[in-house]
Amino acid sequence: MNPVDALIDALPAGRVLTDPDVAGSYARDQTFLQPGKPLCAVAARTRDDVVATMRWASEHRVPVVPRGAGTGLAGGAVAVEGCVMLSLARMTAIRELSPADEIAVVEPGVITADLDRAAREHGLMYAPDPSSYEISTIGGNLATNAGGLRCVKYGVTRDSTLGLEVVLADGRILGTGRRTMKGVTGYDLTGLFVGSEGTLGVITAATLRLRRAPAVPPVTIAAEFPSPRAAGDAVAAIVAAGCRPLLLELMDRGTLEAIDAWKNIGLDPGVRAMLLAQSDGRLPGDAEEMARLCEANGASFVAVPATPEETDELIGLRRLAYNAQERLGACLVEDVCVPRSVLPDMITMIERAAARHDAKICTVAHAGDGNLHPVFIFDRGLPEPPANVWAAADEVFRAALDLGGTLTGEHGVGLLKRRWLALESGPVVTEVQHGIKAVFDPLGIMNPGKAI
Amino acid sequence: MNPVDALIDALPAGRVLTDPDVAGSYARDQTFLQPGKPLCAVAARTRDDVVATMRWASEHRVPVVPRGAGTGLAGGAVAVEGCVMLSLARMTAIRELSPADEIAVVEPGVITADLDRAAREHGLMYAPDPSSYEISTIGGNLATNAGGLRCVKYGVTRDSTLGLEVVLADGRILGTGRRTMKGVTGYDLTGLFVGSEGTLGVITAATLRLRRAPAVPPVTIAAEFPSPRAAGDAVAAIVAAGCRPLLLELMDRGTLEAIDAWKNIGLDPGVRAMLLAQSDGRLPGDAEEMARLCEANGASFVAVPATPEETDELIGLRRLAYNAQERLGACLVEDVCVPRSVLPDMITMIERAAARHDAKICTVAHAGDGNLHPVFIFDRGLPEPPANVWAAADEVFRAALDLGGTLTGEHGVGLLKRRWLALESGPVVTEVQHGIKAVFDPLGIMNPGKAI
Repeated sequence: MNPVDALIDALPAGRVLTDPDVAGSYARDQTFLQPGKPLCAVAARTRDDVVATMRWASEHRVPVVPRGAGTGLAGGAVAVEGCVMLSLARMTAIRELSPADEIAVVEPGVITADLDRAAREHGLMYAPDPSSYEISTIGGNLATNAGGLRCVKYGVTRDSTLGLEVVLADGRILGTGRRTMKGVTGYDLTGLFVGSEGTLGVITAATLRLRRAPAVPPVTIAAEFPSPRAAGDAVAAIVAAGCRPLLLELMDRGTLEAIDAWKNIGLDPGVRAMLLAQSDGRLPGDAEEMARLCEANGASFVAVPATPEETDELIGLRRLAYNAQERLGACLVEDVCVPRSVLPDMITMIERAAARHDAKICTVAHAGDGNLHPVFIFDRGLPEPPANVWAAADEVFRAALDLGGTLTGEHGVGLLKRRWLALESGPVVTEVQHGIKAVFDPLGIMNPGKAI
Repeated sequence: MNPVDALIDALPAGRVLTDPDVAGSYARDQTFLQPGKPLCAVAARTRDDVVATMRWASEHRVPVVPRGAGTGLAGGAVAVEGCVMLSLARMTAIRELSPADEIAVVEPGVITADLDRAAREHGLMYAPDPSSYEISTIGGNLATNAGGLRCVKYGVTRDSTLGLEVVLADGRILGTGRRTMKGVTGYDLTGLFVGSEGTLGVITAATLRLRRAPAVPPVTIAAEFPSPRAAGDAVAAIVAAGCRPLLLELMDRGTLEAIDAWKNIGLDPGVRAMLLAQSDGRLPGDAEEMARLCEANGASFVAVPATPEETDELIGLRRLAYNAQERLGACLVEDVCVPRSVLPDMITMIERAAARHDAKICTVAHAGDGNLHPVFIFDRGLPEPPANVWAAADEVFRAALDLGGTLTGEHGVGLLKRRWLALESGPVVTEVQHGIKAVFDPLGIMNPGKAI
């Protein structure tokens, strides 16, 4: 029997999608990266579907690329030639939501914002909120250890993950972690799987920590600056002053222009950067202090939205930044993260790289974490970035590492950053990472070529 | 050449301690567990000492047991027969403390409270604070993923660990993690080493996250209850109400009597349990709410210390609880952690186990995390707990697992909990844990028989 027929036999009707156009529609993420041609796609609905798929894949030595909503920005879910694209997007059950224990047990296809909304019905929230959270899935967030705007206060996806149910490459089921707030039984397998980009196994359920939602709306400020560096200085001052913002976001002129061109926000010609900051409603002093520090660092204007609707609109514009940038052309998205004290230096290095290589770079940053997204815009007609964009990207990656930073704060390595990986990791780290990979996936069928 | 002579040759003068009494003084931790006889001890002063020791150990196939201050409560640093006890207690440098980036880079022998004090000179703090923090080391805290009183608000040791320098079993140096707040390059090796009890390698430096210290002293309350169950109900109510205590500690009658016998605190006969709660000074409403919830759940008396000195004395008594219990006899210390909603049930189960097996159990709990320390007191003349104590301990472990909990919240598995490990972990977890162990330690010389 041909392998695909054996897979069809092993799964309930309708799970295996063999039409090349249909399977191909699962082959990409949000990057420009050219996928290989998948053998087929599987739209899993249950854990048993995943078990059957992995058993079949091990038997037939077929690579499997797990996939959520395809909103990734690093190529982690891009098809490799001849693979099965294993979609978890239809496993959408919130199996449990316990207000008393402040936890939820969810399947990987749950949309991130849907879980947050379900939690808010009980006065709780699910804190991690990547900009894509209205369309991204929990499974994808787990695979990349996604961050977001609120993680400056509440931490990244790993910080909200207590336990996992994983289907291993050979179809065995591994339960990691716990339902409790603390626990140190054995090695931290949960943390190992979060951020592993589907290279160690397929996550089929997660026990997640919820947090108490603030009782009153946050206080928001928007500050305009005559230079990105000045905005970076304000961020460093806010961190150094011990403010605890709920979010602290920076947008440069290029990003603001892209948003203005789309949404007509009435951008003033002198504004070169904008900071958005929020603090918990119970600590209004923090917002006042942040406004004062913005002014002390050269802000030309500090606005406080008058209504919750105005606040939502402002934050909504920030969440649209990537979509606005995509309207300008094809995008190579970086995700460097640096110690927060050198954020102004990193901003300067990005501007220099743009000038030196004549590259168009729009930057947004989760500035309170030192996490910057320089987005390199290039001609949509090209299959991949031209040489000057790669050169500028290379310079920005190296500058981040020179400043004590990392290649990727929250998007993951995927395919996109593999060529720089050795610069950060070194040979011993590389060797042990591959050793760990081999423990879970001795045949090398789990999302080969990604992450490590 | 005899192996010990080769080790002496490989290290600077004075590092290798061959006198059996001296080496034997490194062989125990705080448990009753009987150590094996070590071959010798090494008092490392530098990373190079550790490298030389591990190269020698690999060459000669000698087991190595890394050790901090020996304050562990699970047998993680207890000698195995013929091992080298590798003490990191003299590697005490705080290599760097950056207020701007809110990080410190420290060696493993730094005393936990010393790092906290160094941070407070800059308005920062090092949050993890096991009760032993005035004598425990950072290295030991990392090895066990130690918790403490403040972790209900600020998380456990892993949550404060950004990166590690590790000497592997063969003497190679592994650098994990980063200096940045976020980062997802490769698998989370940092999280894997934290809590691994010295079974994967020897931590020789750590990049730790500091946090802003509250600007004003916390507000503290002490509530007395007519039963432990009532105190547990108050905890569940406090959690459910969304209070965010800085610490939330429970002591039962037995513990209070032990403290009273030592420190003469004037314990009232009707007091069967006490809760201590603190909230950040900026949120006094939380303390009022917690006091109200204690009264609503049957507290007979709620006190608010009038001065910072009184507060320190009260919290200091809590930190002395284990020492007070030790005055009653030899101790078997459990460390179960349960979902917080079932804390009252767990308290009832402990009382039942004590009654059924005629065992003396004193319990303290980091109640806000659902983490309980039932301490089983037995005759100091016995080499190990008698059968009724083991039976009661077994019953408590099983009850915690039945309630959705875990064997160990913060002390680790060590030797003490190995016999129950399979109940929690299951065969697939066990197999992959051993696979990971083999990646880092193929010869099996790193603290054999602990943790997994």
